[in-house]
Amino acid sequence: MASRLFAGVDIGGTKISVVIANEEGNVLGRGRRKSRPERGFSAVMERTSETVDEACADAGVPRTDLAAVGIGAPSPILPDGTAVSAVNMGWENVPLAQTLSQLLGLPTFAENDCNVGTFGEYALGTPRRRGTLVGLFMGTGLGGGMVLEGAILRGDNALAGEIGHMTVVPDGRPCVCGKRGCLEAYASKTGLAYEFKQAILLERKQSILPSLIDEAGLDNVKSSILRRAWDEKDEVTRVALKRAARYLGIAAGNLITLLAPTTVVLGGGVMEALGDELLPLVRDAAQEHAFPPASYRAASIELASLGDDAVALGAMAYARAQLA
Amino acid sequence: MASRLFAGVDIGGTKISVVIANEEGNVLGRGRRKSRPERGFSAVMERTSETVDEACADAGVPRTDLAAVGIGAPSPILPDGTAVSAVNMGWENVPLAQTLSQLLGLPTFAENDCNVGTFGEYALGTPRRRGTLVGLFMGTGLGGGMVLEGAILRGDNALAGEIGHMTVVPDGRPCVCGKRGCLEAYASKTGLAYEFKQAILLERKQSILPSLIDEAGLDNVKSSILRRAWDEKDEVTRVALKRAARYLGIAAGNLITLLAPTTVVLGGGVMEALGDELLPLVRDAAQEHAFPPASYRAASIELASLGDDAVALGAMAYARAQLA
Repeated sequence: MASRLFAGVDIGGTKISVVIANEEGNVLGRGRRKSRPERGFSAVMERTSETVDEACADAGVPRTDLAAVGIGAPSPILPDGTAVSAVNMGWENVPLAQTLSQLLGLPTFAENDCNVGTFGEYALGTPRRRGTLVGLFMGTGLGGGMVLEGAILRGDNALAGEIGHMTVVPDGRPCVCGKRGCLEAYASKTGLAYEFKQAILLERKQSILPSLIDEAGLDNVKSSILRRAWDEKDEVTRVALKRAARYLGIAAGNLITLLAPTTVVLGGGVMEALGDELLPLVRDAAQEHAFPPASYRAASIELASLGDDAVALGAMAYARAQLA
Repeated sequence: MASRLFAGVDIGGTKISVVIANEEGNVLGRGRRKSRPERGFSAVMERTSETVDEACADAGVPRTDLAAVGIGAPSPILPDGTAVSAVNMGWENVPLAQTLSQLLGLPTFAENDCNVGTFGEYALGTPRRRGTLVGLFMGTGLGGGMVLEGAILRGDNALAGEIGHMTVVPDGRPCVCGKRGCLEAYASKTGLAYEFKQAILLERKQSILPSLIDEAGLDNVKSSILRRAWDEKDEVTRVALKRAARYLGIAAGNLITLLAPTTVVLGGGVMEALGDELLPLVRDAAQEHAFPPASYRAASIELASLGDDAVALGAMAYARAQLA
């Protein structure tokens, strides 16, 4: 029997990415469009459907050959595929899986993007996983997910896994969520922006960053620019990234203490660009904060292996698991 | 068919407590002895066996009428009933369930004491639970456990659930575990002792505590004394307990953010004595630190309902679940 084919869909505030993959997770075709959420939910669904067709064409397979479609989107998502609340998309309680299923005429399953990103590492990552896997994704924000013995930990109303908003410093820095001292306020591009502004604008420290950044300014420095500034030994950049890695490691240590996972996977744009430099720092801080020491020794802290395709491939693997 | 009978055994560094209960968790008989761990594992097992017989006699049932025995003990415990490491008991990799099973001639199951304490609240507590339940037990230390859809979350090598050693204050107070800033260093009798010594010995604040305590001194003030000092409006006591409640609430908020539980149960000696005063403070701090707000609203933070019998009854409920 030939391997079944799946579509994995990554819907974000900026773009829709689709992969067509076989059962083993090998990518056979791709599609990509801007998501344009300001045009409304129905329009995004239409564009998503078109992007799936584009990816099918790229793979050279008819859409009807797909066994199922998986979607990852930035929202808590209920088991019936309803996206509860996606601020970036302007969605409130929209029937995400159901709508795309009707447009495509295919079984369609939806899950939170960080959850499927974590699930993909569990199901497709190298090495294959067992036990508990925790995913930490450091990009613009800090996303996370947990997979326990193959099952995504969803919690009540699918609200679990807001790792970026766990408090790491009581009464600490303000966070975009309105609280203070959240992990995301330290270990994300938002946290880095805080450090950069403090160092460059307030403390007037020398840095090559202002000469490298684009119109987004210090608020959202591209990961490739972070890498370049690190490589050029820019002290402001290095201090900020080291501090972000330390807080990420404290959080990883806390999650090891709580969950005794087999694996903690570090992904997201910042880790994609700087993982080789930051991984040892995250491990050191995790070791310092994990308890008992045996839990740290048993837990492997690794860089994610699915890269930019993490959400789309994770969504594909999630759809595969729903059919199994 | 008559309700089956179970023994629930709580083995600690000071005492062994046994309850005989029916399937519904109604206690029919009790036994209690000193555990005397300094005499070695075999002697503790003999004393435990005798305490079970004592409880059977109290209930007026022969031991052979028991369907199974459950044990809660202060150690990570593997699924085969091996106690991996119990510092208070002097145990390293001892066959706990197997040894007691041979002595009693009954099916015997063992689990970590905080895990069965949490499991008991899930299985027998009022109201009956669903979804995820987190237990936080504030006594000499700060113990915790998690039950997800009826299953104890054990993690790799049964090491999960060390909630007391999650870092709540990076580079904070020293903890008995050798790390710094652990929850237990703030929200436990150990944490209270730190506050009392700082206030009374270093800062020479007025307090009625020195006039109330026994030979254990400020290091381990009895919960009943804490209650009395609170009721007499002793400022040192109140400030310390309020701070402990605040950090417990921060931790509860973090656990809500991470796990989106349906219920967080607060137990242990300090909460037994002062729960009515501390519960609102824990709730306030949890609300301030939980994200998203919907997760806090969905999670009920309650006082434990099984009291001193939490571990023994939880162990009984755990044995019942293993037979089912």
